[in-house]
Amino acid sequence: MTENRQWTIAARPNGRALKESDFALRTGDVQPPRDGEVLVKVLYLSCDPAQKGWMENIGGYMAPTNIGDVMRAGGVGEVVESKSPGLKAGDKVMGQLCWQDYATLPARELEKVEDTGHLSAVLGPLGSTGLTAYFGLSKLGKPFPGDTMVITGAAGATGSIAGQIAKIGGCRVVGIAGGAEKCKWLTGELGFDAAIDYKAGGDIREQIHKHAPHGIDVVWDNVGGKMLDDMLGEIALHARVVICGGISRYETGTNMPAGPQNYFNLIFKRATMHGLLLTEYVSEFSAARARLRQWIESGKIKYREDIQPGLEHAPKTLMRVFTGANMGKQLIKVA
Amino acid sequence: MTENRQWTIAARPNGRALKESDFALRTGDVQPPRDGEVLVKVLYLSCDPAQKGWMENIGGYMAPTNIGDVMRAGGVGEVVESKSPGLKAGDKVMGQLCWQDYATLPARELEKVEDTGHLSAVLGPLGSTGLTAYFGLSKLGKPFPGDTMVITGAAGATGSIAGQIAKIGGCRVVGIAGGAEKCKWLTGELGFDAAIDYKAGGDIREQIHKHAPHGIDVVWDNVGGKMLDDMLGEIALHARVVICGGISRYETGTNMPAGPQNYFNLIFKRATMHGLLLTEYVSEFSAARARLRQWIESGKIKYREDIQPGLEHAPKTLMRVFTGANMGKQLIKVA
Repeated sequence: MTENRQWTIAARPNGRALKESDFALRTGDVQPPRDGEVLVKVLYLSCDPAQKGWMENIGGYMAPTNIGDVMRAGGVGEVVESKSPGLKAGDKVMGQLCWQDYATLPARELEKVEDTGHLSAVLGPLGSTGLTAYFGLSKLGKPFPGDTMVITGAAGATGSIAGQIAKIGGCRVVGIAGGAEKCKWLTGELGFDAAIDYKAGGDIREQIHKHAPHGIDVVWDNVGGKMLDDMLGEIALHARVVICGGISRYETGTNMPAGPQNYFNLIFKRATMHGLLLTEYVSEFSAARARLRQWIESGKIKYREDIQPGLEHAPKTLMRVFTGANMGKQLIKVA
Repeated sequence: MTENRQWTIAARPNGRALKESDFALRTGDVQPPRDGEVLVKVLYLSCDPAQKGWMENIGGYMAPTNIGDVMRAGGVGEVVESKSPGLKAGDKVMGQLCWQDYATLPARELEKVEDTGHLSAVLGPLGSTGLTAYFGLSKLGKPFPGDTMVITGAAGATGSIAGQIAKIGGCRVVGIAGGAEKCKWLTGELGFDAAIDYKAGGDIREQIHKHAPHGIDVVWDNVGGKMLDDMLGEIALHARVVICGGISRYETGTNMPAGPQNYFNLIFKRATMHGLLLTEYVSEFSAARARLRQWIESGKIKYREDIQPGLEHAPKTLMRVFTGANMGKQLIKVA
């Protein structure tokens, strides 16, 4: 039998930062596939802030996790053995492969993907990251030529794609990110109109006002807290506020942080705040992916991957997305 | 010359409750109309929480007020002298008549209204109150048969109409109000399905959950603060949250209260929060009034007016809407 390493959930990180002891590494045998199942060798795993919420069973939009479960994660891999007519050895597939070397899953829970040479992209710009940006804008943010969009977590996997789509749509895009290197990437390679380095000090709201003097038409928020309030204070008439994430909240647990004081500005500006969850748009993924692929191939959308090798370092690698250590999409290279 | 009493703005009530000394009473002569103007005898004046915000120049959606200005208020009156071909003495008109016995105004700033025997209704269910309820639902809340709607300030002028429109639309309606009398009115005369008396003690969120066990589809908020948070914690998938007002916030000024901690539930429930401002829908007022009038005449919408006589008591009467002393639409009877 082949050996299979698995990271399980050992503790729930509610109300605090993740730590390595929240996970336990065990080694067992690979589980052979039964009828309808396939055995997949995991190649890349996606690291996303939402995974912490899954460990905490927050939000109720996913099946609950239990202590002892293999840590849930999206991933891409290669079929090594198939007991399903739809898939054969060598096929590349994506799905919830979880933190392990090998996944044994029903074929119907996997999606076959083309291997065009940058396979990991199906976890980033062609996967949940890119699709979140795409639907957050097409369904909720609705950028219109001439609009000004301000993005927090702008150098992150989702924010960076959202900003580039808005640029394709003729918008002025301002990104907020931590550190000079990230900001330089936004205004340089990605073509953002301006970037605000929140780590450089200075009043964020003043800087937003300077870069969006006529108000923000589309807010894209990955952070929450003071930054969301600063943006809400600067919205334009009929602004659309897309709540994509709230990285500043994820370690607070039941000691819930204050919400946006400036939500009342939604009245004065006749504006709208939307919650964004990708699962909403599953039926339209295929059409969206085709557009994203075209934009990537034509160079209109650029992306970076932050690939950390080694399943054994999975906890540390996931922790990077909560400190902003990652530059672009955070991935674990398993094999 | 006829004598004209006027209440002017003497101080701005930012960051505190209104007090009588924020207003100053002066007496002068009626100003005769010039070409294009009319002289209107004021009959009723509307009392609305938004008036405090106008004194504070908050929100930027109205022309600023100055200290010494006659206090701004919507009203209905009778033309006593006209220098405009469109209006003649005896016509009933509505507009920003302000806190005074007589208003001299350009005819184009007035709207002629039918006097069907309940003239003051044009300030309430047929006026800004009813229209706010109508458009807040038709444009933003979008009630659908079977939906559950929860309303704060439910016995107020706007909340009570919004609830009845949702009942016409086949919804289950739960009102939150202060005091047994108001709650009895909601579930009795108005036909709400349930009412929660927030003054009776008990956990509001628990009671909401009991009356909306499958979640709230439409939130209608006039209060803000803890009550808004309680409702956001109980929203259903795809909920629409209409922010109509925030009576709990109006005395806080620059010492801004916390926003809703549970705004993040917008993500998990793929929900939307809208700010509602009536000025948005001026072009559709006429069609909406026709429906409201029909519902009122057929008895499907009932309303109460809380008419306090005497322009001399105007400050005290306006203060009633901030303490919840009023039952239904608060009006000042001037003449």
